[in-house]
Amino acid sequence: MTSTTMTSTTMAQPTQYRLHAYPESVVTADTWRVTHDPLPELAPGQIQVRLKHLSLDPGMRGWITPKRSYMPPVRPGEVMRAFGVGEVTASASDFFQPGDHVTGFTGIQTEAVLDGRHMRKIDLAFAPARSYLTSAGMTAFTAYFGLLDVGKPKAGETVVVSAAAGAVGSIVCQIAKHQGCRVIGIAGGAAKCAYLTETLGLDAAIDYKAGPVDAALRQAAPGGVDLYFDNVGGDILDAVLMQINYRARVVVCGGISQYLDMGQVRGPANYLQIIAQSATLQGFTMRDYLDRIPEAFVALLTWHSNGKLKVREHVLQGIDAFPAGLQMLFAGDNHGKLVIDL
Amino acid sequence: MTSTTMTSTTMAQPTQYRLHAYPESVVTADTWRVTHDPLPELAPGQIQVRLKHLSLDPGMRGWITPKRSYMPPVRPGEVMRAFGVGEVTASASDFFQPGDHVTGFTGIQTEAVLDGRHMRKIDLAFAPARSYLTSAGMTAFTAYFGLLDVGKPKAGETVVVSAAAGAVGSIVCQIAKHQGCRVIGIAGGAAKCAYLTETLGLDAAIDYKAGPVDAALRQAAPGGVDLYFDNVGGDILDAVLMQINYRARVVVCGGISQYLDMGQVRGPANYLQIIAQSATLQGFTMRDYLDRIPEAFVALLTWHSNGKLKVREHVLQGIDAFPAGLQMLFAGDNHGKLVIDL
Repeated sequence: MTSTTMTSTTMAQPTQYRLHAYPESVVTADTWRVTHDPLPELAPGQIQVRLKHLSLDPGMRGWITPKRSYMPPVRPGEVMRAFGVGEVTASASDFFQPGDHVTGFTGIQTEAVLDGRHMRKIDLAFAPARSYLTSAGMTAFTAYFGLLDVGKPKAGETVVVSAAAGAVGSIVCQIAKHQGCRVIGIAGGAAKCAYLTETLGLDAAIDYKAGPVDAALRQAAPGGVDLYFDNVGGDILDAVLMQINYRARVVVCGGISQYLDMGQVRGPANYLQIIAQSATLQGFTMRDYLDRIPEAFVALLTWHSNGKLKVREHVLQGIDAFPAGLQMLFAGDNHGKLVIDL
Repeated sequence: MTSTTMTSTTMAQPTQYRLHAYPESVVTADTWRVTHDPLPELAPGQIQVRLKHLSLDPGMRGWITPKRSYMPPVRPGEVMRAFGVGEVTASASDFFQPGDHVTGFTGIQTEAVLDGRHMRKIDLAFAPARSYLTSAGMTAFTAYFGLLDVGKPKAGETVVVSAAAGAVGSIVCQIAKHQGCRVIGIAGGAAKCAYLTETLGLDAAIDYKAGPVDAALRQAAPGGVDLYFDNVGGDILDAVLMQINYRARVVVCGGISQYLDMGQVRGPANYLQIIAQSATLQGFTMRDYLDRIPEAFVALLTWHSNGKLKVREHVLQGIDAFPAGLQMLFAGDNHGKLVIDL
């Protein structure tokens, strides 16, 4: 196809980022193929959407790993899976009209024909469009249910959160504070740590780039860790496991330290501590909570409007920011929830 | 002390196996020191006990690892910790009389002066003395609570058990069958596997020494694994994790494949599957259930007397069987619950 050789996206043609080949270890430029295929005709039930915002998430690494997971991997040639928000420009569905805004799996593309049954209508009176990917989107819902329903924090408990300045982690930290917990965030770099203690009001922040996490954690949490919300895996998970308390809960939300090379994932060497401490490692995804989204939506919007939930958005411009943007996540170079504005 | 050079235990003197030094990786002959120290005078509350049976358990490896765990490690010079059963020969406690039988942490020794508050009186009318270490002892209680209370099996579910012919595993398998589960045992060697299917009536047995566990498990559990009771860790845990079902529970009871070299424990590389499957890895020890022992005792005795619980005892003779006996556990050379008769 001649379209595969085009590099400009200034034309009025749609642009799609497609999976070219599964990365064996590291995601590279060769992982993707850019196309400018015209949109198909609308079939019954479908809607045509002009995308406005795309969400970049660590979970994308799993979607391009050809391994059994909670949803089938993206297949080579398919448009890369992504959450997005867009405006309906044409509809062959009874449930959507042009001008409606929708969210769901839109893919990394500028325009799309999507199955209306898989999209959710959103109301911009509640929140601006981009918020449906940030403070009131899947990321925020993940933080909400992962902390409250899986982790079940109790007032007075010590909660530790890794990737604490990240999209999920920063919301987890704030909700844990609302619950009356002592909250310690782990993040990379002084700027992120200052954000955690000064802006988000955490009790302590640990800069994992500045020194050993175990010593810093012993100082910040002398009474041990009751609940650990893990987004990173690797050395930090191992360090925290050595300081968990009896009946501690480890909420396993992600393992981004292991996502660069999915062929060489390193399991937590200290996992046998869960025997010694009668502790639990529990995984979850949002598919467990799809029917409870309204509850999280109302709570998050309320906190946000009360100033009790701060969400930092890291906004990239244009669809061609996608490949480098994804790398930012794995390098920890993003500050807050990473989105692309189109 | 001259007693450390003695090798004979035929004398009437007490014999003690003491920890000489923490093994850096593998337990060796140098780990232990044999003494024949005379018994101290009885202090108030103490009892003098002649040991009859000693229990050898994988957990012993953790007790001689100088790392934070559910109880403090044995210190160099101390008698090696062990469960045992013995007869009271003298008492300075109001609660015990000579002729009583007791169980608890007696240590690896032939006679001992013990604190009566830490010993439990047992009734040989219910079961013979050795059974209090086997079918009605901590091993059996561990199987009972680990499966029923931590794992929560439901009728019709597929339950997989590793070290299934071992002391804990074989009881777990049988209780899971009582619950109406489909039960698959993993063990090493054709003899153990035949025991699992023919004597214990399991639905399938997988010989991990005969070929890849993943392929055998796919065949034995085409519908996936709902509950995995893990005694071994390592490759087998990783293989099972790839075949767990949505909301599966992994009961982490032990990790004997990793006990040979506690300095180089390998965590489960496939642990991120618990995210994909919203699954749980949960650890426990019997300290969580000490107040519920009577419930387990009655259930196990009842099953045993009804012929619904078969417990194989692997009996070694004499205290000097201890060092080699412990190695048998790590090599998987024992057939059933390993005990020493004195």
